[in-house]
Amino acid sequence: MSVAYSFTPAVTGSEASLTGIVTLVQADMGRVNALILSRTGSDVAMIPEVAQHLISSGGKRLRPMLTLATGALAGYQGDGTVKLAASVEFMHTATLLHDDVVDDSEMRRGKLAARMLWGNEASVLVGDFLLGQAFRMMIEVGNMRALDILSTAAVVIAEGEVAQLAAAKNIATDEDAYLAVIRGKTAELFAAACEVGPVLSGRTPAEQAACRAYGMNLGIAFQLVDDALDYGGSQADLGKNVGDDFREGKITLPVVLAVRNSDETERQFWRRCLERGEIGEGDLQQALALLVRHGAIAATVERARAYGLAAKQALDVFPSSPARDALLDVVDFCISRVR
Amino acid sequence: MSVAYSFTPAVTGSEASLTGIVTLVQADMGRVNALILSRTGSDVAMIPEVAQHLISSGGKRLRPMLTLATGALAGYQGDGTVKLAASVEFMHTATLLHDDVVDDSEMRRGKLAARMLWGNEASVLVGDFLLGQAFRMMIEVGNMRALDILSTAAVVIAEGEVAQLAAAKNIATDEDAYLAVIRGKTAELFAAACEVGPVLSGRTPAEQAACRAYGMNLGIAFQLVDDALDYGGSQADLGKNVGDDFREGKITLPVVLAVRNSDETERQFWRRCLERGEIGEGDLQQALALLVRHGAIAATVERARAYGLAAKQALDVFPSSPARDALLDVVDFCISRVR
Repeated sequence: MSVAYSFTPAVTGSEASLTGIVTLVQADMGRVNALILSRTGSDVAMIPEVAQHLISSGGKRLRPMLTLATGALAGYQGDGTVKLAASVEFMHTATLLHDDVVDDSEMRRGKLAARMLWGNEASVLVGDFLLGQAFRMMIEVGNMRALDILSTAAVVIAEGEVAQLAAAKNIATDEDAYLAVIRGKTAELFAAACEVGPVLSGRTPAEQAACRAYGMNLGIAFQLVDDALDYGGSQADLGKNVGDDFREGKITLPVVLAVRNSDETERQFWRRCLERGEIGEGDLQQALALLVRHGAIAATVERARAYGLAAKQALDVFPSSPARDALLDVVDFCISRVR
Repeated sequence: MSVAYSFTPAVTGSEASLTGIVTLVQADMGRVNALILSRTGSDVAMIPEVAQHLISSGGKRLRPMLTLATGALAGYQGDGTVKLAASVEFMHTATLLHDDVVDDSEMRRGKLAARMLWGNEASVLVGDFLLGQAFRMMIEVGNMRALDILSTAAVVIAEGEVAQLAAAKNIATDEDAYLAVIRGKTAELFAAACEVGPVLSGRTPAEQAACRAYGMNLGIAFQLVDDALDYGGSQADLGKNVGDDFREGKITLPVVLAVRNSDETERQFWRRCLERGEIGEGDLQQALALLVRHGAIAATVERARAYGLAAKQALDVFPSSPARDALLDVVDFCISRVR
């Protein structure tokens, strides 16, 4: 592509900055991974096949690491966070399987989406299986407040996804409506993943709320960076094609911001491409040019930075520790995926 | 259709025999229905629209009635069974929404399937929302054993559905494999729905197991009758088209039994229609004629009767009561849908 961006991918720096959390939770992540493997098992052979295809495809497992790391921050000693971390990853995986059906996606994490290999049916049903297994593991932990947080998250995620469906193909979506969508579909699970460790540890409500706020703000920042990358990252970085959101008619923050400042000709362009789905040769380049002209990608990254800062500040209630340092580094990692 | 069956729909008799359970649980069902209505609410307008389309479409709400009636049988006094009954109906509704996507169904309960009006995406996501809400209500009840039973059911249902997917289009499926599928996809939820009331009441393990066995056997009988009706009921009775299973390549017990006794020419026919999906004019009539010739529908109904009898006998551990009578009548109702 010939359009110039105000940022470039930062592979070296970003890989380095997850080192803190990876080291911190290494031992427990081994147990989480073993649990994930054993709980995808089933006499019905198709279930582990489909589940493992996605689970073993090289996701960072950021969400379960967050559950373990916030548990460590809160001084948690038991094995409850291991099960809850595996639950969180299963909830995430179930969402991805269902999302691929919803979006008609052909690729996921650089591999063919499960639905392309086993069909939409298997993706829907294996997603349901994993969601059920997630609840079983949570129930085994036996903490009612954690159950409440994670089951509420399941509801809020689905609401966010449906809201996104309703907002899709509508270029009148404003920034508030868009933020409500990503709070639900992305940030709620980050928030829940970060809240349950301090809950199991019996930390104060203020400390639980701080970890939740960290997760929520981090999740929003994470999604906004993803939105920016969808119009600017290289295919190798994202494991999906640049312009996927554009082709699927998804209204993301870069588009919301560009539309807000656009003239009638530009609006016609966005309407044709995103509302009516009439996308031809050169239209993605044209979209990229409009986003750059209005500074919409830079503004999206700017907002991501602000949420990232809020995530870091939320942890001010905790004294300095290796766990807190690792969690602060995660924010920098997420933001550094774009410069 | 010109093929003669050994049974006819029995609308009058069957309507009458649900009177016992309907009367028994009437007051609590009012509260269940109010709860169902309030918990389908969401700021995201599409969610109550899609959920209500299916929920208000005249299902019998047999499963929540069973939860209330087995609760009454067990002498339960609180309001926990009301919430668990609503949870069970939400789990069932979520399954139907996902099933329609999996089966590409156009009709459900005599109306257009939700996916035909709002798309596959909405059916998948609103199903996820309802499943999440089901778990939230269970968690509010706060009984760990009930949570364990219902979350296990969610997993087993998904396993049964995937197993059915794997068995579909394979006429070598035998009776055992088929029974394993319907135990999962249908009977497990009946069993769980019937077990949780006695659990909340703190009845003995033997009494809990008796109610579970009642539900499991009733569920199997219910599904076998459905299978027989799919090749014999009128469209008005079922709210779906006769021969749906045939057209979808589903291997159900009538087909399993007919294939078992068939010669090579007949096997070729079943392979062409169900495995390769090459179905032409007259093939459904031919299938019906083969099923009748081998007595496969009558044999399916016979097995349904046997499971119905087992369901009734399971309740022998309880003394006679209006609740027990009502539960026995439910078995007769389910069987009487075919004669």
